Amino acid sequence: MLKLNLNNKKTSIIEKSDNNFTFSPYDVVKEDINKVNKFIITKLKSDVPLIPIISEHLLKSGGKRIRPTLTLLFSKLFGYHFGNRHIELASCVELIHMASILHDDVVDESKLRRGKTTANNVWGNKSSILVGDYLFSKSFQIMVNDADFAVMKTIANASQSLAKGEVMQLSLTNNLDATEEKYLKVIEGKTAGLFSAASVLGGIITKQKQETLNSLSLFGNYLGIAFQILDDVLDYDISSNSFGKKIGDDFREGKVTLPILIAYNKSNHKEKVFWKKVIEDLDQEKNDLKKALDIIKKYNSLSQAKSYSKAYAKKANEILKKLPKNNINKSLSTICEFVFKRKN
Amino acid sequence: MLKLNLNNKKTSIIEKSDNNFTFSPYDVVKEDINKVNKFIITKLKSDVPLIPIISEHLLKSGGKRIRPTLTLLFSKLFGYHFGNRHIELASCVELIHMASILHDDVVDESKLRRGKTTANNVWGNKSSILVGDYLFSKSFQIMVNDADFAVMKTIANASQSLAKGEVMQLSLTNNLDATEEKYLKVIEGKTAGLFSAASVLGGIITKQKQETLNSLSLFGNYLGIAFQILDDVLDYDISSNSFGKKIGDDFREGKVTLPILIAYNKSNHKEKVFWKKVIEDLDQEKNDLKKALDIIKKYNSLSQAKSYSKAYAKKANEILKKLPKNNINKSLSTICEFVFKRKN
Repeated sequence: MLKLNLNNKKTSIIEKSDNNFTFSPYDVVKEDINKVNKFIITKLKSDVPLIPIISEHLLKSGGKRIRPTLTLLFSKLFGYHFGNRHIELASCVELIHMASILHDDVVDESKLRRGKTTANNVWGNKSSILVGDYLFSKSFQIMVNDADFAVMKTIANASQSLAKGEVMQLSLTNNLDATEEKYLKVIEGKTAGLFSAASVLGGIITKQKQETLNSLSLFGNYLGIAFQILDDVLDYDISSNSFGKKIGDDFREGKVTLPILIAYNKSNHKEKVFWKKVIEDLDQEKNDLKKALDIIKKYNSLSQAKSYSKAYAKKANEILKKLPKNNINKSLSTICEFVFKRKN
Repeated sequence: MLKLNLNNKKTSIIEKSDNNFTFSPYDVVKEDINKVNKFIITKLKSDVPLIPIISEHLLKSGGKRIRPTLTLLFSKLFGYHFGNRHIELASCVELIHMASILHDDVVDESKLRRGKTTANNVWGNKSSILVGDYLFSKSFQIMVNDADFAVMKTIANASQSLAKGEVMQLSLTNNLDATEEKYLKVIEGKTAGLFSAASVLGGIITKQKQETLNSLSLFGNYLGIAFQILDDVLDYDISSNSFGKKIGDDFREGKVTLPILIAYNKSNHKEKVFWKKVIEDLDQEKNDLKKALDIIKKYNSLSQAKSYSKAYAKKANEILKKLPKNNINKSLSTICEFVFKRKN
């Protein structure tokens, strides 16, 4: 099994897998990811104890650190050697992600994330909202200190895209009129925008030309879409046996994601009535998740969604072929494969 | 009565008052404030309907627009004539304030603001959290497009200060161990920082030297403190007959503000037990607000707090004496007086 977890030294991170991946993204950025973690902790030292407490809770709750890894890998791909900008900007990206997690968990009323209790569950919604704002503003402070307009535009636009995607997502909740196109727009906004920025930053600090930056942006966009589709699949994938993942969270909230959309569009009249009841009216009985999983299975919804994820990851991988061919490129390719094969 | 309301054309804004204020800040910036409103509305046009809907609800709910007014007045004080930067940066400041209002009302579970129903009360907490994030990121996008490092540092630091003040405020809630010093730190963070930035921006775009910028920063800081202290007083001031203001909101939440702190510190043992019960344990009975108001009255808590507000407003006004002496300076002086005399 392929595992990517860049947070915990003790667990294996990218193991040599059935697929014979030789180049582990983790080996290459391991040290730098530790620096990112340390940089974030240092930046969040504060005379307001709640800020480091909640932030460290988040940092310790695992996470794949895939966004900062992209910044670090692209910096290295183009030979970034001197200075600390890659660490600081990777931290910036991760801080925006952390802020969005804090707010997401309040909005979704989540109690668990990656098997650990959420910050809102321990310290309450108020703390999560306000510390989220703090992390968000901190990332902007770091970005302004970096003092590069291209960097600032990239990060500001990604934050804007993330916030817009999150608001759009509200209109997808309890609403089966949503189309696949709309779903795609939401995940491009809420996930792919930051993946894209994370990738582009590596190109900016190594002074790549605009054409290359466009490629990195597209790479991040495709990879982010692939990542989010699989994330939404894993919410229904009982086979994934995923650590800390509670099956059916999206279902319980009535979130309309790709697996539901595919199944709903193929459903017969009786099944459509069922979907309306459980997703739009949120009128869910004890066995309804099982019923939903049965319909999803009947129409091969998960494998179809997975094939979408794979297709986007392949598109991302195609872009790598235009970029410098070295071990870092192989690591990025490994990430593309990881994204649609991961189990959590 | 002195009224400042820069939002609604039909109501008088700064009326000639008992105090014979001759120079109305509104007359000077009336047109520009309309431009700020329009700029914000244009910037928030979006294919996601909820964003302009909630934002326009906020804009139409009144508000003194004191922060953008400071940016506009200081720009004019130093002779800013050409370009649109004063409008864009004033909008930037107002957007951060709007974002913080959306999040504040969720955190405080507010149902009314200035006599109008709050956004969270109409569209729910989720929408307010996410649209707040959107406004926040939008303000950063505008700031980055302005492309001036001094501007960006000023705004990023103010946002950081605001977020930190808001988190700190949580520790003042239901906690009578708070000191006046701590209270001051909180309001400096959550309110004065943005007042300060709003003032400094006018100096930056007119290329003032650092010494002047420091004066503007101090002016905003003092004015913001004066403003917030009076805000906290008005929450207990039944004499203010303030439109749309529900007396005792802070009391019901157990927020420890200056009127409570002053009263608590002077209270006898029996009264202290009462404060502990209502503020720390939030165990409030029907007549407890009246009881609290009686103790507050007994110790002249409101007039003492008002005198603090006045003292800070005077300190702000003192700074104006070092700046160019023209009609705009008089308008700024009027604002200083308004801040501690206002009734809402």
